[in-house]
Amino acid sequence: MARLSKDRLFPVEERSRGLARELYATTRDLPIISPHGHTDPRWFAENAPFPDPARLFVTPDHYVFRLLHSQGVPLEALGVARADGGPVETDSRLVWRLFARHFHLLRGTPSWLWLRHAFETVFGIDESLAESNADAVFDHIAGCLARPEFRPRALFERFGIEVLATTEGPLDDLRWHRLLRESGWSGRVITAYRPDAVVDPDSDGFAANVEAFGALAGVDATRWDGYLDAHRIRRAYFKDFGATSTDHGHPTARTENLSRDEAAALFDKALRGIATAEEADAFRGHMLTEMARMSLDDGLVLQLHAGALRNHSTPMLQRFGRDRGYDLPLRTDYVRALRPLLEAVGERADLTIIVFTLDESTYARELAPLAGVYPALRLGPAWWFHDSPEGMRRYREMTTETAGFYNTVGFNDDTRAFCSIPARHDVARRVDAAYLATLVATGRIDDDEAFEIAHDLAYRLAKAAYRL
Amino acid sequence: MARLSKDRLFPVEERSRGLARELYATTRDLPIISPHGHTDPRWFAENAPFPDPARLFVTPDHYVFRLLHSQGVPLEALGVARADGGPVETDSRLVWRLFARHFHLLRGTPSWLWLRHAFETVFGIDESLAESNADAVFDHIAGCLARPEFRPRALFERFGIEVLATTEGPLDDLRWHRLLRESGWSGRVITAYRPDAVVDPDSDGFAANVEAFGALAGVDATRWDGYLDAHRIRRAYFKDFGATSTDHGHPTARTENLSRDEAAALFDKALRGIATAEEADAFRGHMLTEMARMSLDDGLVLQLHAGALRNHSTPMLQRFGRDRGYDLPLRTDYVRALRPLLEAVGERADLTIIVFTLDESTYARELAPLAGVYPALRLGPAWWFHDSPEGMRRYREMTTETAGFYNTVGFNDDTRAFCSIPARHDVARRVDAAYLATLVATGRIDDDEAFEIAHDLAYRLAKAAYRL
Amino acid sequence: MARLSKDRLFPVEERSRGLARELYATTRDLPIISPHGHTDPRWFAENAPFPDPARLFVTPDHYVFRLLHSQGVPLEALGVARADGGPVETDSRLVWRLFARHFHLLRGTPSWLWLRHAFETVFGIDESLAESNADAVFDHIAGCLARPEFRPRALFERFGIEVLATTEGPLDDLRWHRLLRESGWSGRVITAYRPDAVVDPDSDGFAANVEAFGALAGVDATRWDGYLDAHRIRRAYFKDFGATSTDHGHPTARTENLSRDEAAALFDKALRGIATAEEADAFRGHMLTEMARMSLDDGLVLQLHAGALRNHSTPMLQRFGRDRGYDLPLRTDYVRALRPLLEAVGERADLTIIVFTLDESTYARELAPLAGVYPALRLGPAWWFHDSPEGMRRYREMTTETAGFYNTVGFNDDTRAFCSIPARHDVARRVDAAYLATLVATGRIDDDEAFEIAHDLAYRLAKAAYRL
Repeated sequence: MARLSKDRLFPVEERSRGLARELYATTRDLPIISPHGHTDPRWFAENAPFPDPARLFVTPDHYVFRLLHSQGVPLEALGVARADGGPVETDSRLVWRLFARHFHLLRGTPSWLWLRHAFETVFGIDESLAESNADAVFDHIAGCLARPEFRPRALFERFGIEVLATTEGPLDDLRWHRLLRESGWSGRVITAYRPDAVVDPDSDGFAANVEAFGALAGVDATRWDGYLDAHRIRRAYFKDFGATSTDHGHPTARTENLSRDEAAALFDKALRGIATAEEADAFRGHMLTEMARMSLDDGLVLQLHAGALRNHSTPMLQRFGRDRGYDLPLRTDYVRALRPLLEAVGERADLTIIVFTLDESTYARELAPLAGVYPALRLGPAWWFHDSPEGMRRYREMTTETAGFYNTVGFNDDTRAFCSIPARHDVARRVDAAYLATLVATGRIDDDEAFEIAHDLAYRLAKAAYRL
Repeated sequence: MARLSKDRLFPVEERSRGLARELYATTRDLPIISPHGHTDPRWFAENAPFPDPARLFVTPDHYVFRLLHSQGVPLEALGVARADGGPVETDSRLVWRLFARHFHLLRGTPSWLWLRHAFETVFGIDESLAESNADAVFDHIAGCLARPEFRPRALFERFGIEVLATTEGPLDDLRWHRLLRESGWSGRVITAYRPDAVVDPDSDGFAANVEAFGALAGVDATRWDGYLDAHRIRRAYFKDFGATSTDHGHPTARTENLSRDEAAALFDKALRGIATAEEADAFRGHMLTEMARMSLDDGLVLQLHAGALRNHSTPMLQRFGRDRGYDLPLRTDYVRALRPLLEAVGERADLTIIVFTLDESTYARELAPLAGVYPALRLGPAWWFHDSPEGMRRYREMTTETAGFYNTVGFNDDTRAFCSIPARHDVARRVDAAYLATLVATGRIDDDEAFEIAHDLAYRLAKAAYRL
Repeated sequence: MARLSKDRLFPVEERSRGLARELYATTRDLPIISPHGHTDPRWFAENAPFPDPARLFVTPDHYVFRLLHSQGVPLEALGVARADGGPVETDSRLVWRLFARHFHLLRGTPSWLWLRHAFETVFGIDESLAESNADAVFDHIAGCLARPEFRPRALFERFGIEVLATTEGPLDDLRWHRLLRESGWSGRVITAYRPDAVVDPDSDGFAANVEAFGALAGVDATRWDGYLDAHRIRRAYFKDFGATSTDHGHPTARTENLSRDEAAALFDKALRGIATAEEADAFRGHMLTEMARMSLDDGLVLQLHAGALRNHSTPMLQRFGRDRGYDLPLRTDYVRALRPLLEAVGERADLTIIVFTLDESTYARELAPLAGVYPALRLGPAWWFHDSPEGMRRYREMTTETAGFYNTVGFNDDTRAFCSIPARHDVARRVDAAYLATLVATGRIDDDEAFEIAHDLAYRLAKAAYRL
């Protein structure tokens, strides 16, 4: 029932807590740099009110609905759309009540913190959600959402967002980004180029995607050279809408540096649907090197999000479609997998490759040692399941000693849940303040260094790494 | 020489320590739910005195004798029986002296805590064991053991055990459980069905086991359908002696969901001793899915203890037999391995599958994400080498943020060492109190939530998950 | 700008910090046992002044130059020699300025602590290095180096080193060790036998190495029996120069125990350059068992440093040669890999095998369980990238509960950077004091035990394990 603690996530010992408070006081109000995420540009283009509390907080948030589902709540009852068109709950108040009744399941998870933070700071709700206050909280939030100061652009400004990147596929016409630009609104919402649909031979409709891709770019993308040209053309198009980065989601971190003929042959097989699993993987791996080469030309930062096995449950995929909480981490190798890419371009200090992982065992063993030597390589922040206080702490404890702070790139919220953006950045700033305070308290950095690093981690590194 | 600290395992900072004390005060005296372990039902059926200190604390405890052996103490000198009938030390006092002389080797291990706790709370011994007091402690414990209040049933009651599960093989006639039931004693000691001997084609005497299995069940278990029937019949028999769970020890977490014909063919090969290693593994994997399907019918909870390479040293296996400290953890995959099982039955909220691991790198990467979405899946507590303060802390820190508290199942002591049962539950309750106090102190849960969760972890979750 | 904190690396809570201080006070001034490292015996044999600050602290220290390079500083500009003879910066003052300008990159890394410690305790410099004081610090250190009390032997004595082991290859004539012995200086600098160049078929010039090896030993080492004899003869020669250990650097921990004929056949193939990668690996694995057998005869301790992929970047290998920061950790298996060796000799309490890892996920899962049962096996300390406060803490937290303290072997500095030796031992002694203080504060060991263990970890265990 209490408000969130003002000292949350700080060390418990009084002197380190005091220093963490001081550090956080200098970063708390810094503008938010959100260089990677999955919010919907349409929100900002149209600036329409968010529909209702359930559709703001429950239905789109896989962190929330997967945890309720794990205790037997059917996704239908939470209003999650069926891929097969089957019926789901449409009464948002009923969805909200169900959410409220199970809110205790989120205890100890970052969602508890994010939601409490959003309730408190965005909607002024001082109590935790429970069955008993479900209706009252619903009505209060719904009332807020109807007011102009809770529309997307107003919240964007209130959140102090300096720049927000969305992520679009290669076939996206960027209409919402165009509309945004034409609107004259001053908020900086940019896109990022995520070409998986035309890079991953295992994507649904890969060959058709490539054809459409060529059509958009005005080249024949079904030939290897044309395909590469289409990437160049679409990258330029995305860049025109502010993109400073590309993003790549692969099941492994495998990279390849094939000859032109080998690559073209794989591409041809992939288009014809006859690439083996091994060939598809090699093709994906080679495309990372191609993308890196293009980055050397156009300056886009390359992000690699590796190691998720998507859609673990075939029955649930058929019932609900993608991104429904059934993407699961895989053990991932980086040292051997990234070698072809790094041998090709890793020494280029004018290139930035940012690697993310879902396999924490690689932080100290592989990623920090790699980022600690290759000029082109940087470590993305703790990602997805690890975007949490313990996850962030482990990230710092397992990467700093080998890679330092300056091979990391600040924080990414990586979210679809708009109201969680300030909450997530707040968690990151607090955890970093706590970590730095502990380093000072244990004599591992000087006091003045801690203040400088706190600012770097909260603001400067993200801007620099993403060229924002 | 001092008594154990009253504040052991609590946070060191004063305010969190205070809260941990308060939390622990509410769980310390809760009844013990011991839903999985390896104590001997004969103890409670016969209620004979335990023989002597060495045979109570040293000879049966692989944690103890393996650590002494690692520093060069021959197992023979510790009275561990030879499989080949060779001579071993039979003078328990000499074994005890050797144990006392090497007691310092246990420093920093959970055995130090467990033994000190048992010495102090069960036998009233306030000093640590050492060469100098070996005889005095031996005599004191031996004196106690001769008294009626130190017999198994009296200790069971004194320990506050509400229910204790033993583990029996499929060929066991459950005679001790029968005797127990007939004795009229009120203590609740139940069995659990561990069919490895008739499920694992690599078991000693697999084909003979299956034949005996059928004979016990009154069916021809050498045919596939009869074999499955025999399982159903024996499960019902075990259920009749209180079983609420089955247990499965496999070298990997591999599961399969084969067609009837494929499964029957593998079974046939296994019976004839011509299954390859791969086929044996596939058969074990398929049997987990069969067992889960039977659980849907009879309600038994399915436990999977995966990832131990048994009998690492062939010479030591030949000399001393199984369970002599030479079982070693293997890196284990769960995300890919459990997929067939979870696609088959993972969405069933009326099924409970509890998974344990010896590979901590899977907590955050695989097990918490899996348990955080599949309704049927729960995480067993920190197991075996990880049943320790640091192991339990890492378990909470690496699972809670993704799976929450309610996809875990409380504590299992999983022990053969009877006197360690209260000690182990005490460690778990203290570590959880410390963890919860830290979450409160860092603003990650509310104070009142912590008290509720403490009770859940110490008592309610184990009862609920194991249907006790 | 401040001096290093006197309480650095101690717990932050006051009472535990107080106990850590007391523990550390008893170990701070103990003599340094350095049983494994890579300092140059020539320094002590010639006792010439160290050339200048850059060549003392920057050029030879891969921890330092790799981290600067990772942010785009060319290795040439740091004075790192080119393998291809290309030009590099030779003006040490310019190298030093570049180092000073980038000193902030080392924040949070152990190098920051080591360098600050050396600057302060060896050279009396109370401020951190920065661009602004680069020249002043350079001049000050250069001035010191010219004085007799900063020559290698004087520093050796000032550092309180009781014994220091260097590491030499099998073809080394040990001329500096001979010179040292003949000099009459009382400092104990011993060698260690690292035969990789004649054990690893993938070594540069393997066949030529073996031939030269035989020539040195006075046998025909190109036949299997002669080859083994040559090892025996060279081991005895190294032992004559104080060696108490051998050391083996392998990409994996694979061991084999082949028949004489199998081993001889592999050796023959390796010599003829026709061994496959698999055969080369099997040969390396078998040689560990051969070395262990020889250790049973001559008493040398066997060290296994496994799991580094050397020279990750081929372009950088060609440009700068080996040991330039491009050696990267690999995921490593021990349970299966060490089985042949341990089945052959693991039960021998008169043998000591010390295993190191770069894969921390194996501490709790594999190495502690193995060392906690096999009499011959000991765990080396946290190694290389993990030779750091967090790395050492994780090492204790993940190994102690299963292996105890007495299956570990104290600290190895393993360094090429002479001035970092006292700094590194100081870090280890502080981290261990902090760990022990925390164990006492949480009731996991008694106060008097902590003092005994602190002494063991800082001094006694290294002497005992390495037979010094």
